[in-house]
Amino acid sequence: MASDETKILLRESEMPQRWYNINPDLPAPLAPPIHPGTGQPVGPEDLAPIFPMELIKQEVSMEPYIEIPDEIQRIYRLWRPSPLYRAHRLEKALKTPARIYYKNESFSPPGSHKPNTAVAQAYYNKQEGVKRLCTETGAGQWGSALSFGCSLFGIECTVYMVKVSYEQKPYRRVLMETWGSTVHPSPTKLTNAGRTILEKDPNSPGSLGIAISEAVEDAATHDDAKYSLGSVLNHVLLHQTIVGQEVKAQLKLVDEEPDVIVGCVGGGSNFAGVAFPFVKDKLNGKKIDIIACEPEACPTLTRGVYRYDFGDTAMLTPLLKMHTLGHTFVPEPIHAGGLRYHGDAPLVSLLVSQNVIEPRAYHQLPTFEAALNFARTEGSLPAPETAHALRGAIDEALKCKETGEEKCILIAYSGHGFFDLGAYEKYLSGQLEDYEYPKEKIEAALKELPEVAAP
Amino acid sequence: MASDETKILLRESEMPQRWYNINPDLPAPLAPPIHPGTGQPVGPEDLAPIFPMELIKQEVSMEPYIEIPDEIQRIYRLWRPSPLYRAHRLEKALKTPARIYYKNESFSPPGSHKPNTAVAQAYYNKQEGVKRLCTETGAGQWGSALSFGCSLFGIECTVYMVKVSYEQKPYRRVLMETWGSTVHPSPTKLTNAGRTILEKDPNSPGSLGIAISEAVEDAATHDDAKYSLGSVLNHVLLHQTIVGQEVKAQLKLVDEEPDVIVGCVGGGSNFAGVAFPFVKDKLNGKKIDIIACEPEACPTLTRGVYRYDFGDTAMLTPLLKMHTLGHTFVPEPIHAGGLRYHGDAPLVSLLVSQNVIEPRAYHQLPTFEAALNFARTEGSLPAPETAHALRGAIDEALKCKETGEEKCILIAYSGHGFFDLGAYEKYLSGQLEDYEYPKEKIEAALKELPEVAAP
Repeated sequence: MASDETKILLRESEMPQRWYNINPDLPAPLAPPIHPGTGQPVGPEDLAPIFPMELIKQEVSMEPYIEIPDEIQRIYRLWRPSPLYRAHRLEKALKTPARIYYKNESFSPPGSHKPNTAVAQAYYNKQEGVKRLCTETGAGQWGSALSFGCSLFGIECTVYMVKVSYEQKPYRRVLMETWGSTVHPSPTKLTNAGRTILEKDPNSPGSLGIAISEAVEDAATHDDAKYSLGSVLNHVLLHQTIVGQEVKAQLKLVDEEPDVIVGCVGGGSNFAGVAFPFVKDKLNGKKIDIIACEPEACPTLTRGVYRYDFGDTAMLTPLLKMHTLGHTFVPEPIHAGGLRYHGDAPLVSLLVSQNVIEPRAYHQLPTFEAALNFARTEGSLPAPETAHALRGAIDEALKCKETGEEKCILIAYSGHGFFDLGAYEKYLSGQLEDYEYPKEKIEAALKELPEVAAP
Repeated sequence: MASDETKILLRESEMPQRWYNINPDLPAPLAPPIHPGTGQPVGPEDLAPIFPMELIKQEVSMEPYIEIPDEIQRIYRLWRPSPLYRAHRLEKALKTPARIYYKNESFSPPGSHKPNTAVAQAYYNKQEGVKRLCTETGAGQWGSALSFGCSLFGIECTVYMVKVSYEQKPYRRVLMETWGSTVHPSPTKLTNAGRTILEKDPNSPGSLGIAISEAVEDAATHDDAKYSLGSVLNHVLLHQTIVGQEVKAQLKLVDEEPDVIVGCVGGGSNFAGVAFPFVKDKLNGKKIDIIACEPEACPTLTRGVYRYDFGDTAMLTPLLKMHTLGHTFVPEPIHAGGLRYHGDAPLVSLLVSQNVIEPRAYHQLPTFEAALNFARTEGSLPAPETAHALRGAIDEALKCKETGEEKCILIAYSGHGFFDLGAYEKYLSGQLEDYEYPKEKIEAALKELPEVAAP
């Protein structure tokens, strides 16, 4: 392969045929999810009302690899293997000796990495006779990915969309509807969880935590429906590992190994998807800096506690041991909607607690500055979430400029920003603001954490 | 290559290194552009105030191939070669024996085929010391492509955006501004052409013809500025032929030759880019149906006349022999903004007049029906312009279902519809309407055609 190629491509026949399961390779055992009623670890029977059995098995599997069914592979080929880009033009603009690569997940039909798991989840639900999937969405990336997945398998899809996003981002809603989904602004009057919130605050703008409660309740109370989550859980991160495995094969084609891996973290699925296959190498002794970038307005990994907490506001989900700001924490309305979650994936949290992954928090103005820098050199318009990874990577590349180190920097480029131009408009016109670190709000929310005895 | 692959890919090293110039292969000589003042063919000196010399040379070149400069090739590699898709899932849904392929230009940073020429035009202008490019845009596809191209070469870009689109499609404007352009709602008070219109009608919604007048005037009256057009002209179509040449190489990899080629036509550049390399084969005796799809609301090729006309409303441009509805014709506001031009490329028009290309007109409702069908099978969301090509292709595939013919159908998939979800929303909610064939408006506009003696 010529050294000046821009895109490092794999053939469809070179696409990984297994997902990589990090569970057996972890440096410490993963704490199990806890049933909030009993205080005991949840078993498959507890999860069966909301997830199909095959996904429950994947959630707890200790197999190092799990085969990707043929039908999922065929659908993946609509956009996979995704290209790995060498950021020649960005490197030049930064005058850095670093070599920068970005794994570009923006070419999937919904425009992000999310369909890697959406398609898999729709498949397993279809296999087990499920007629309808319920889910929540914030900015709409996940909701549109699941809508896409469901449309390909002829499953109905009900999306609880955080009301403020439903109103501010009508295009994401229409995209979901174009794929055939029904989209409700959350909180709704359709669920107990929604009604409870609306009684207290009829004008509630909603939050991801509330929308999760509504979707879980809808699934749990309807026999032919299940629930689907776009991040956080082990099986979701598992499905995303196809991304990092592709990167490994692609970097090998150009004789590279990453010194630094940078991704953005909301729930952690894109980050994990790219990083986990390399985490294995790091645990085996390779020196790699693995950097998780999050917003200063929702600083879960950098300022949260590593404790058991609920995944949702209404306390319907099992308790997960994770970095959390408290399930009642509602972050300021930064534009990286996908990074506004109070918790983090237990797998990512564990690796942060073990110092395998280094978290960093950024204010939104510097992330938009990085996004503009990227758009004007590499051409593509990044999502505000992705901009956090770009900020981290550009900072690393500028460090290399100072030290002269010729590091290989790998960016997890999670998606495009075509639905976020309202945020770009505000940035360009100087109307975008940074929020103070929400110290008091976090302290208050942490007081609401449930007490859980170690199982 | 396995027969069940979804994407047929070329390596960057396999990207065509020359553009194909159809001019020497035409079945009849192309009528020259005429100077409206003198009635004589325009010479290079007439065009020099608005175009750089290298593009003027390309406009009249009789060389069969023109080398693509290295720097343009390097930039093309940000998204080229683009994938050729086999539409397995659409074929299955249609139950057609036809094999359907689509050449997907939606992965370029601005989301369409337009940067193939935008980058080339920015390059040649930069080479000749031009500091600023002026252009017009309707729905914004072209304006964003040129903004992207100019941002990569550090050239300023001034975009006159049809006012109704400027107001209805703010995201496209922001995209252009993100790449550093200045965008004005046209008609403006900045040009004589704009002021003249505004005097007659202060609330003019603008039109592509008016915006062209403004951009041409801006370029012609400023020494360091030139004008750039996104379609119609020979050199623009030339730059797009990289698309069809890639398709040829890709189809060869799977041992296919197209029986039918379908594209949408506004000015004709995407259509020409895909079709022209195959037109050559057709002129050499191969049987290929080459179908140009246009809107019934702006039926230039199906209902216009093949005559000399101005390219713009203010009669500033040279006269071009083309299919036209008259330069004063302003079509109804269909959502395929890129197909709302009163004229067509002279090269495409000539081939229609010679019965090499078959034009067809579609109402917008059936095109959105085709778009939805596509989005729910192949996953990707097409632009409303692209939906015209899909309508034509689906009709051809359904004919094959009736006759049992196993035709190979090639679709020119020009771009994505992420900025057109307002139109999808209207379609999904039943608010979209079809417009009657604008017979009287066309008859009135045709009376305004200039009289030109054959040169």
